[in-house]
Amino acid sequence: MSDTVRFDLPQSEIPAHWYNIQADLPRPLPPVLHPGTHQPVGPDDLAPLFPMDLILQEVSQDRYIEIPDDVREIYKLWRPTPLLRAHRLEKALGTPAHIYYKYEGVSPSGSHKLNTAVPQAYYNKRAGVAGLTTETGAGQWGTALSQACNFFDLECHVYMVKVSYQQKPYRGAMMRTFGADVTPSPSNKTNAGRAILAESPDSPGSLGIAISEAVEAAATSGGKYKYALGSVLNHVLMHQTVIGQEALKQMELAGEYPDVIVAPTGGGSNFGGIVLPFVRMNLKEGQRTRILAVEPASCPSLTKGVYAYDFGDTGGMTPLVKMYTLGHDFVPPPVHAGGLRYHGMASIVCELFDQGLIEAQAIAQLETFAAGVAFARAEGIVPAPEAAHGIAGAIREALAAKESGEKKVILFNLSGHGYFDMSAYTEYFDQRLFDYDYPEAQVQAAMQRLPQI
Amino acid sequence: MSDTVRFDLPQSEIPAHWYNIQADLPRPLPPVLHPGTHQPVGPDDLAPLFPMDLILQEVSQDRYIEIPDDVREIYKLWRPTPLLRAHRLEKALGTPAHIYYKYEGVSPSGSHKLNTAVPQAYYNKRAGVAGLTTETGAGQWGTALSQACNFFDLECHVYMVKVSYQQKPYRGAMMRTFGADVTPSPSNKTNAGRAILAESPDSPGSLGIAISEAVEAAATSGGKYKYALGSVLNHVLMHQTVIGQEALKQMELAGEYPDVIVAPTGGGSNFGGIVLPFVRMNLKEGQRTRILAVEPASCPSLTKGVYAYDFGDTGGMTPLVKMYTLGHDFVPPPVHAGGLRYHGMASIVCELFDQGLIEAQAIAQLETFAAGVAFARAEGIVPAPEAAHGIAGAIREALAAKESGEKKVILFNLSGHGYFDMSAYTEYFDQRLFDYDYPEAQVQAAMQRLPQI
Repeated sequence: MSDTVRFDLPQSEIPAHWYNIQADLPRPLPPVLHPGTHQPVGPDDLAPLFPMDLILQEVSQDRYIEIPDDVREIYKLWRPTPLLRAHRLEKALGTPAHIYYKYEGVSPSGSHKLNTAVPQAYYNKRAGVAGLTTETGAGQWGTALSQACNFFDLECHVYMVKVSYQQKPYRGAMMRTFGADVTPSPSNKTNAGRAILAESPDSPGSLGIAISEAVEAAATSGGKYKYALGSVLNHVLMHQTVIGQEALKQMELAGEYPDVIVAPTGGGSNFGGIVLPFVRMNLKEGQRTRILAVEPASCPSLTKGVYAYDFGDTGGMTPLVKMYTLGHDFVPPPVHAGGLRYHGMASIVCELFDQGLIEAQAIAQLETFAAGVAFARAEGIVPAPEAAHGIAGAIREALAAKESGEKKVILFNLSGHGYFDMSAYTEYFDQRLFDYDYPEAQVQAAMQRLPQI
Repeated sequence: MSDTVRFDLPQSEIPAHWYNIQADLPRPLPPVLHPGTHQPVGPDDLAPLFPMDLILQEVSQDRYIEIPDDVREIYKLWRPTPLLRAHRLEKALGTPAHIYYKYEGVSPSGSHKLNTAVPQAYYNKRAGVAGLTTETGAGQWGTALSQACNFFDLECHVYMVKVSYQQKPYRGAMMRTFGADVTPSPSNKTNAGRAILAESPDSPGSLGIAISEAVEAAATSGGKYKYALGSVLNHVLMHQTVIGQEALKQMELAGEYPDVIVAPTGGGSNFGGIVLPFVRMNLKEGQRTRILAVEPASCPSLTKGVYAYDFGDTGGMTPLVKMYTLGHDFVPPPVHAGGLRYHGMASIVCELFDQGLIEAQAIAQLETFAAGVAFARAEGIVPAPEAAHGIAGAIREALAAKESGEKKVILFNLSGHGYFDMSAYTEYFDQRLFDYDYPEAQVQAAMQRLPQI
């Protein structure tokens, strides 16, 4: 056989630690502020929502945090994930570039989200809670947390954006398979939900509303439940660094080192997961890899947003975080990459961008679907629409290399498969999908409503 | 970390040969007969439908047939597949048995079907045809052949049972992603389809009708197209032996040898794939592994059928094959395991059963879904309803071992995931699924119509 396609690590090479980039940032992260006092929040402010172990991870300055044995035991069900060289895609593009991808879709939940769902469930179980509440939009996070709660015998209460609940019944069925209770949001179960329904009984819901419901359900449970978030937070990105740590070793097996790494950004967990260990190599080991975030042209937080303090949710209930934001009440156009429809961005990703350590690029919907189909036909895997943004960015890099004749090494993170997104592909084939203009007027209006800090 | 969960082989261990059990059968397979003359068919009789390479494989007595490099290159996209020990399922069952499973759902098409789709497309491409026609019911085979044809730049024309086409639009979308043309059957494209539609314009279709359409489309194309089948035939089972060959090596890595192997049987390709290399070990190397086929209680070809010459399709257009059959015009009840709703069985599986080399067991639908959910909760993967039959059989064995206190080693083949079958799981959770009585009267009637040989 001529070429190696897959670079596998044995299970003994599952990382023993998560990597915490806070230890290596040239400039520390801006503090998170209390929404009332505008003073930095302390651990106690977060204790009603999160267990202390996760709060301490959120603010830790330790470079490495040991992964508990019970978490690694569950990681073994799918980790290490494969790293593949996309020989067939290279050939289809006619590029001299070498294209590698790390494939997280082999996890039982079908995406990288399980990497953080498992430790979040573990630490909550240790803290003695009965269960977790969360929100989900497209459903990848809700599926992952349902599985993780099932593994640790925790209840899981998912508030799923109503329109997604109706459009993607299979996602709800997956969560039910793992024993989760799935509620279309807005619901009658919370004050937040009832208030919305009183005003608009037919509300299709939004991620912002679902967050409000999930947070309220935990905060008013008298400690029975806590709340879990699938992206944005520091500890979430840190849990995802198992991806990049494995990829570093696998690129060594391949005998190459990436010149450029591409990953999509919504809240930042997929991007952070693959790139943070490579950012460390740039900062500490003299590597000079270009690191490229790809976001939807219709929701371009990094490329069009402002770096300012803003709320994490639409309703303005969360602490204030400094981030590249389009305004917390900006509602992104209904692109199919539901996981990327977020007004803000993880604090870590924002600091890396502001410090000039990473680049960002916005790509419109049709180009991402074309890239997804080209990838599927070459490599066999149908990517989730979110993941297709990374592919589109990688293809741009590969075509630029073809133009310049450069033998560039490209790595991207294929965060999940698209088996639950085939209706979006159907719309694409039927030419019922289109690009959305950048909603400049709406963003400008939302920016007027940023909190004054 | 305490226990190893996954036993991985490097890509250099992808089998170099397919294993052909015809070389080792104590008694040769009965000949296939021409439907008109009742004389054994020769290669020329099959040439309008299949390329000569596959016809020769169908009748070959060589023990090993080399896998072409171009096929192994594509196998590298997902092979070797993982073998896992189901520690968490063992614990949930409280059994002293060790349970291992080979997971074929990691293939880009989501099931084992791609193992034979790729070589079938390869040999047809070499024979110079423009494309392939086929039928699909649940959609696993249609998806696999679409991908394989795409890899070799062949057209792919899929006749999909109309009711499945409507119920499972995502499957159709997958096939379109790979460039296939998917036609709901019965259609106006063939005489067979038009005849059905003339009589019943609202016909929901059946696998038998779809086979007739696909065969007709190839046979009347003047050599432009040939026909491909995803199970039953000898060469199909032989291509699947990559599964069992890898599993043999992986059990060696695990330091154990199976006392019993369990796999579902519909047409026989999944079962043959895992067990045939182990049957060889029983026949030639003195091993004494029990080998157990699990079929749906509502379509129990092996346990309730007769061993007789019958047609492979409902319409009676194919050659006559000696097999355990419920009668070619028996229509199995609409269980969700669409891949197991077949009146007959692969000739190889039937001979093994008739020669007493394997056992068979029929399990009803609700037990298989309960087993699928128990497996998903323990191991994370939601199995396809077909694959859940193997799990149900394995759980029975594990509970028997618990009863007897025996430390038995159980291996089963998890042939595919259930991401496209979540509507069936939803019906199960909503208690809208039920068991079907064994349709004895219908089978008796169908048996009256067996051809008189």
